[in-house]
Amino acid sequence: MPLFKKVLYPTDFSELAEVSKNYVIKLREAGAEEVVLLHVIHPLEFSLPQFDDPFALDVATIYAHLPEIEKEIIKRHEELMNEIESELREKGFKVDKVLVVGDPKEEIVRVAEEKNVNVIVIGYHGKGLLERILEMGSTAKAVIRKAKCPVLVVKKEFREE
Amino acid sequence: MPLFKKVLYPTDFSELAEVSKNYVIKLREAGAEEVVLLHVIHPLEFSLPQFDDPFALDVATIYAHLPEIEKEIIKRHEELMNEIESELREKGFKVDKVLVVGDPKEEIVRVAEEKNVNVIVIGYHGKGLLERILEMGSTAKAVIRKAKCPVLVVKKEFREE
Repeated sequence: MPLFKKVLYPTDFSELAEVSKNYVIKLREAGAEEVVLLHVIHPLEFSLPQFDDPFALDVATIYAHLPEIEKEIIKRHEELMNEIESELREKGFKVDKVLVVGDPKEEIVRVAEEKNVNVIVIGYHGKGLLERILEMGSTAKAVIRKAKCPVLVVKKEFREE
Repeated sequence: MPLFKKVLYPTDFSELAEVSKNYVIKLREAGAEEVVLLHVIHPLEFSLPQFDDPFALDVATIYAHLPEIEKEIIKRHEELMNEIESELREKGFKVDKVLVVGDPKEEIVRVAEEKNVNVIVIGYHGKGLLERILEMGSTAKAVIRKAKCPVLVVKKEFREE
């Protein structure tokens, strides 16, 4: 059985997530067959006064209640997901797309367990003082701490070698 | 070029390091060819009053200055390293054994850069409150933060699937 058959790739569409994607693609050589492609939208991106707990809602439910302009946010995220899906399919992966509203670190850990993945590939902003002050990378840190499966922590630099 | 051609496997001979070793071995399937097998002995394990900075010393230098009983510590560590080396060679790996005295997190990051490895495989004690209070896993945390290469963070449970 390949070690990394099913990979969870959470993306926030950042440059660092792009670097992580290169590693996901390289894992194809290591026997990876399926990618769970996850994007988590934070509820604060929407005006949702009518919900007590927006974390508990799925994207379709939220979508139905959004003003047109905020529907565009979801549509744009879906387009970005579709682009990545196409690229991963071209590389030979089966892709399971998951778009949810919630807290990124909680959702990443939850989806990893629900989908029973073998590894999570996640980018980590390591070094800069500013980044540490701003608590960037805290999603990665929380995922590393809470995940039950192995986590491949990717740094900014992608070395093809 | 395989993604994980050269792997750094730091071990403290713990149960968790044993789990990490299973992942190192599985990386053979992912094209890994060479393992840098590293054990870092903390200078506090020795009585070395004659040195101002034991971190700067190599094992051979320290060895020459140790009382017999402490030489046994190094010998025992070397034996454990040899056992792991044999096992990895049997699995088809080229093995580069490194035994140093110093601060584990600093040495792991330094050796990773010096040996130009593609990935560090390290165990991480994640969840327990006690473990967090005792700062276990802090070596892994520091390595994740400081390493320039990707880090495969292994959790206690090894799922062969």
